[in-house]
Amino acid sequence: MSSTAGQVIRCRAAVAWEAGKPLVIEEVEVAPPQTNEVRVKILFTSLCHTDVYFWEAKNPLFPRIYGHEAGGIVESVGEGVTDLKPGDHVLPVFTGECKECAHCKSEESNMCDLLRINTDRGVMLNDGKSRFSINGRPIYHFVGTSTFSEYTVIHVGCLAKINPLAPLDKVCVLSCGISTGLGATLNVAKPAKGSTVAVFGLGAVGLAAAEGARIAGASRIIGVDLNSNRFKEAKKFGATEFVNPKDYNKPVQEVIAEMTNGGVDRSVECTGNIDAMISAFECVHDGWGVAVLVGVPHKDAVFKTHPMNLLNERTLKGTFFGNYKPRSDLPSVVEKYMSKVQ
Amino acid sequence: MSSTAGQVIRCRAAVAWEAGKPLVIEEVEVAPPQTNEVRVKILFTSLCHTDVYFWEAKNPLFPRIYGHEAGGIVESVGEGVTDLKPGDHVLPVFTGECKECAHCKSEESNMCDLLRINTDRGVMLNDGKSRFSINGRPIYHFVGTSTFSEYTVIHVGCLAKINPLAPLDKVCVLSCGISTGLGATLNVAKPAKGSTVAVFGLGAVGLAAAEGARIAGASRIIGVDLNSNRFKEAKKFGATEFVNPKDYNKPVQEVIAEMTNGGVDRSVECTGNIDAMISAFECVHDGWGVAVLVGVPHKDAVFKTHPMNLLNERTLKGTFFGNYKPRSDLPSVVEKYMSKVQ
Repeated sequence: MSSTAGQVIRCRAAVAWEAGKPLVIEEVEVAPPQTNEVRVKILFTSLCHTDVYFWEAKNPLFPRIYGHEAGGIVESVGEGVTDLKPGDHVLPVFTGECKECAHCKSEESNMCDLLRINTDRGVMLNDGKSRFSINGRPIYHFVGTSTFSEYTVIHVGCLAKINPLAPLDKVCVLSCGISTGLGATLNVAKPAKGSTVAVFGLGAVGLAAAEGARIAGASRIIGVDLNSNRFKEAKKFGATEFVNPKDYNKPVQEVIAEMTNGGVDRSVECTGNIDAMISAFECVHDGWGVAVLVGVPHKDAVFKTHPMNLLNERTLKGTFFGNYKPRSDLPSVVEKYMSKVQ
Repeated sequence: MSSTAGQVIRCRAAVAWEAGKPLVIEEVEVAPPQTNEVRVKILFTSLCHTDVYFWEAKNPLFPRIYGHEAGGIVESVGEGVTDLKPGDHVLPVFTGECKECAHCKSEESNMCDLLRINTDRGVMLNDGKSRFSINGRPIYHFVGTSTFSEYTVIHVGCLAKINPLAPLDKVCVLSCGISTGLGATLNVAKPAKGSTVAVFGLGAVGLAAAEGARIAGASRIIGVDLNSNRFKEAKKFGATEFVNPKDYNKPVQEVIAEMTNGGVDRSVECTGNIDAMISAFECVHDGWGVAVLVGVPHKDAVFKTHPMNLLNERTLKGTFFGNYKPRSDLPSVVEKYMSKVQ
């Protein structure tokens, strides 16, 4: 039992007081965890574009503590928590796994009814209140993680217990984007050994998707990006060829179809741009091609295609967090890193 | 060897002289089969809407002999044909299986490169000519089958050899619509035992799709049709519930989601109407739902949906001829009928 268990902890956090205004390092009070909650000492946290997106957004949930890609160590646990104990190494995840709902019991879904990502909620489920405060004023949580704080309180269903030998400064990034891209390829697109894969968008998520294709044994991994500077880095993650749509005066799906005798076996879309989504779908081979959408689109975006593209036996799927179940599956992703899977 | 082998056969056929004009029973000459071709005596042929669609269409391929759902007996075979011999019972199929292209070698595709349906071709592949004539004037073929003739010539790759005990007057309908619907459910949607399935459109294809869901052990099979008179017949094919979209003042996908606690596990769209396609996709459950499109849409139709419907882990697929490979798989569909699979 740590000496702070059951006590309010005073620590530093980066607080967003207003939309789009610089975060301010403040001393905050972090209340003890309640039923099914865990207080975690955050050792490393990274910045994901989703943090920026909601920090910029004009919503009523300010002041707020952002942050959701992180690694830490359990400081204390609330009632009913049996899976974790003080000292355990954990990755907080922006979406959870209650292990009891229809989604958690499904082999296919990771979209937990209870703990699915909720960007509109700034409080804990247990009592509808925040565990953060400054001089009695509540500070809102973000996606149940709020890792831009030295200590944070998280629902036990949103914490993956990982190998304590894993370096938290490295594996913290597995709690969001990297797993999203890797899982999109390995769990959803599932390219066969020797197949062709196109990856749209060579940011962190896309690089992880390319890495997934490399691990799966794809023979050709075609990276697609509007920024040619990204191609060099992408090679390290398995990309074998590059296409910059700006270099052609026809749709990129036609370019890829010509390069691959009719289309790639699999494509993974990691930009969130609706035109890229449509291209990613239309560039897969008829008869067996599968396109997987990963990037989050604009709220008014509309996916449009001629239905014959589907009737010619193409498949279109979407994925959320690479279809990984946070508690059940994320520890094995960390193990993949530890064993440097080739 | 039949006495007619190698000879021109004179027989009756229903000839379409012009688009939309009544067919005329004429005496036609049917030339002997060439390399990889088979001449078949057609004993039974049924009428599919696709025949009507192309008969109505203004295209240059007249005069023409329609018909593609049929059963017959091999009269003689051309050079190189080793899989069939005179006397074999066969179902002609509007799409073929060469057994050599990438599609035929794929476990997933049935969209043969060589013999895929081609509604624009009115001649045989071997020499680019028709085997039908009237007083020396060529009469065009239709989708390689032209079964509205007592004898017809068909590429060996478009003939399924079936159990000679199967009643040809019944199983002739397995060569198009029934297999399309049945296969859409059994081969593509693949509902698990106890799952929920929605079938859009309760014509012959939709009834077969419902039958597939019944065979798969679905617990709820929701038939959707604008014509309530079709519901009675659908019960015989396994439908357990019915929805007529006209009875509601909200989108049918919302009605189905409410009936099923968030959506059906699988849906199969058998109308070809673009709005029904969109509803069929949007009525499947997030996390694991799979929608399968079967109906052929209008050439200008556009499938539109918000990409979040995909990102919430729904899958959208299309199928062609129920993903059955005509020569490899159709004989087993006939066996299913013969053994009256429950």
